[in-house]
Amino acid sequence: MNTRFSRRHFVGGAAAALGALGLRPNSALGAALRPPPKGLAPLPRDAYDDLAKLSSNENPYGPSDSMMEAMNAAWKYSNRYGYPDGDIHEKIAEHHGIDAGNIIMHAGSGETLKVAGLAFLGHNEKVVGVEPTFMTVYRAATGVDADVIARPLLSDHTQDIDDLIRVTRRNYRDVGMVYVCNPNNPTGVVVSDDDIRRLLDGIPEDIPVLIDEAYHHFVQDPSYATAVPYIKEGRKVLVTRTFSKIYGMAGLRLGYGIAPAEMIDQMRTYTTGTINALVKWGGVAALEDRESEEWVKDTTIALREATASQLRSQGFEVIPSETNFFMVHTGRPASEVRAEFRKHDVAVGRDFPPMLDYLRVSIGTEEEMKRFMTAWNEIFPDGMTATGTR
Amino acid sequence: MNTRFSRRHFVGGAAAALGALGLRPNSALGAALRPPPKGLAPLPRDAYDDLAKLSSNENPYGPSDSMMEAMNAAWKYSNRYGYPDGDIHEKIAEHHGIDAGNIIMHAGSGETLKVAGLAFLGHNEKVVGVEPTFMTVYRAATGVDADVIARPLLSDHTQDIDDLIRVTRRNYRDVGMVYVCNPNNPTGVVVSDDDIRRLLDGIPEDIPVLIDEAYHHFVQDPSYATAVPYIKEGRKVLVTRTFSKIYGMAGLRLGYGIAPAEMIDQMRTYTTGTINALVKWGGVAALEDRESEEWVKDTTIALREATASQLRSQGFEVIPSETNFFMVHTGRPASEVRAEFRKHDVAVGRDFPPMLDYLRVSIGTEEEMKRFMTAWNEIFPDGMTATGTR
Repeated sequence: MNTRFSRRHFVGGAAAALGALGLRPNSALGAALRPPPKGLAPLPRDAYDDLAKLSSNENPYGPSDSMMEAMNAAWKYSNRYGYPDGDIHEKIAEHHGIDAGNIIMHAGSGETLKVAGLAFLGHNEKVVGVEPTFMTVYRAATGVDADVIARPLLSDHTQDIDDLIRVTRRNYRDVGMVYVCNPNNPTGVVVSDDDIRRLLDGIPEDIPVLIDEAYHHFVQDPSYATAVPYIKEGRKVLVTRTFSKIYGMAGLRLGYGIAPAEMIDQMRTYTTGTINALVKWGGVAALEDRESEEWVKDTTIALREATASQLRSQGFEVIPSETNFFMVHTGRPASEVRAEFRKHDVAVGRDFPPMLDYLRVSIGTEEEMKRFMTAWNEIFPDGMTATGTR
Repeated sequence: MNTRFSRRHFVGGAAAALGALGLRPNSALGAALRPPPKGLAPLPRDAYDDLAKLSSNENPYGPSDSMMEAMNAAWKYSNRYGYPDGDIHEKIAEHHGIDAGNIIMHAGSGETLKVAGLAFLGHNEKVVGVEPTFMTVYRAATGVDADVIARPLLSDHTQDIDDLIRVTRRNYRDVGMVYVCNPNNPTGVVVSDDDIRRLLDGIPEDIPVLIDEAYHHFVQDPSYATAVPYIKEGRKVLVTRTFSKIYGMAGLRLGYGIAPAEMIDQMRTYTTGTINALVKWGGVAALEDRESEEWVKDTTIALREATASQLRSQGFEVIPSETNFFMVHTGRPASEVRAEFRKHDVAVGRDFPPMLDYLRVSIGTEEEMKRFMTAWNEIFPDGMTATGTR
């Protein structure tokens, strides 16, 4: 019995299907669609498997073959506490060219966000950020009776940096942390490096700024850059990264924070999770497998752009995305559209107030994106003009 | 390539080897040494593997075959957030005949202990317990600037319940929690059910009592009982359990707490870890695989008793243990003895002040216990009489 996860079911007929999405073959796409390094037979499918899961910004391909090999070889540490772990902590530090003391490993970057909330917020402290965004930090704040100052996006869906600076300065004594998801979830829109620097320069330097880079690996916009160099400059910045997206490890749980050593120490007290032995080895293999990383990035972007251009050609507004998901303006409550998609065995979006007539769509496999478009065309038979609500 | 963990390397020549440990065949032992249900070829061994690891109270056999099957079948959830999880939470609740709202799942019971420290202790609060014991709660207390009131064991190595009651009552306003490891680590000695009830009746009922039952599954002493029924009675008791010991999942990370719903809610705020998808399925299979559980228990106890009686026959004091480890009186600093064992590629114990001339020995495989005894006989060639320090 072969028990290894595979992505072979994705390969085959790809070019034809992308054609159906309205995408013309070009050289970049040709590179994206080369087959993955190696494949194995898929497991039997069940009802859950048969659902097109485009609702949680997951990587539909799962861990690469080299990651699977590394994890399977680590089963022998299942029953151990101390064991060779592939030096995952040091490998992450090397990956960023930073000291190991600037890294804190967690069971997914969701843990890093929650720990930061516990470490840097408390009674009567406030976190400043935008709305909609990824909610884990805000929820952690509420759990410890801290307040959330959630500011609206600008009309082009970007984060209003001047507003965040103004609000942070106005509430200086009460602000425990500023949160910036970059690129932002659920919009897919980046904050430029210039804006990040302006934010850091514009607020008191003793306020920690958490920059959530969960979707970093999908960004192409040259105005964007990781905020890790600001940590090397000595700024009070916490950058979070995850193995859940580009590396397909959401269910396995691995992520980390990068920050000045004194912030790492503060976070250690509130870290209660620990990391599975197999996952440590999978993480090491993930960092080394650049070929699979690029394949996932290129394939995801090609499918995202093909789908978005199909929707735009029907008159729908699609927010330009730098991630493995996008938002499309439905012109009516997205919750209704979502319910109709479920009848087609396609799971999409959830509510992201106040953007209740935008639907967030995660990029699945090519087959899943075909199913999404087929369902879309049935739900919106006459394009945007027929929705009548704009 | 076969990537599944196996315990076949343990099977074979067992009876002869136990004979060498001085154990006479009997019916209980015959049952213990029946082969495990199914086995697979072992992985290649390396230097770490070749070390006899008798220092961390690990289960040397790893997950059972049914657990491995369940975990391997769950690889397909590697990249998912929401997925079928075998109803692990509900299965644990059923296992104890308690509501699911009385269970909090964690990445090992170490997480439960740390979360309890964060949730129930704080500045100027105190935790009451004995010394030596398992230190995670005390360390969590120190991390949040709480104090530890660590009381000595009685001369027979039992926990002095009257003393714990006295100290808790005397410090009532400052005590955030009482901690009882039962059976205690590192001594292996149980607290009787009568003593647990006396403790609960003897202290103010609003003080949470954490009863750490990590080694529950190895206990034979009829005076012992799990404290779970006190939770059903409505007492402010938190019982912790782990899949690390009896089920061999230390490196995979699964454990949980059982407590009144309001304590569970308080702990949720401070829980930052999450559980790996494969591990949830492994946990469900573990609870169902009673045959493997009994095999691990019986084999471990048979090897523990055989080793202890060999040591006692040489004149050494071995503390009667109800766990998968025991303490032996070395008559000289255990740290020195430990260093000598390392020359024999045997890892044992660590320091458990104030019991610095007792060595804690975890029960490994039969082959590992043979290596332990061979090394012991070289380190103590003339038995206890020659150590000259008593």
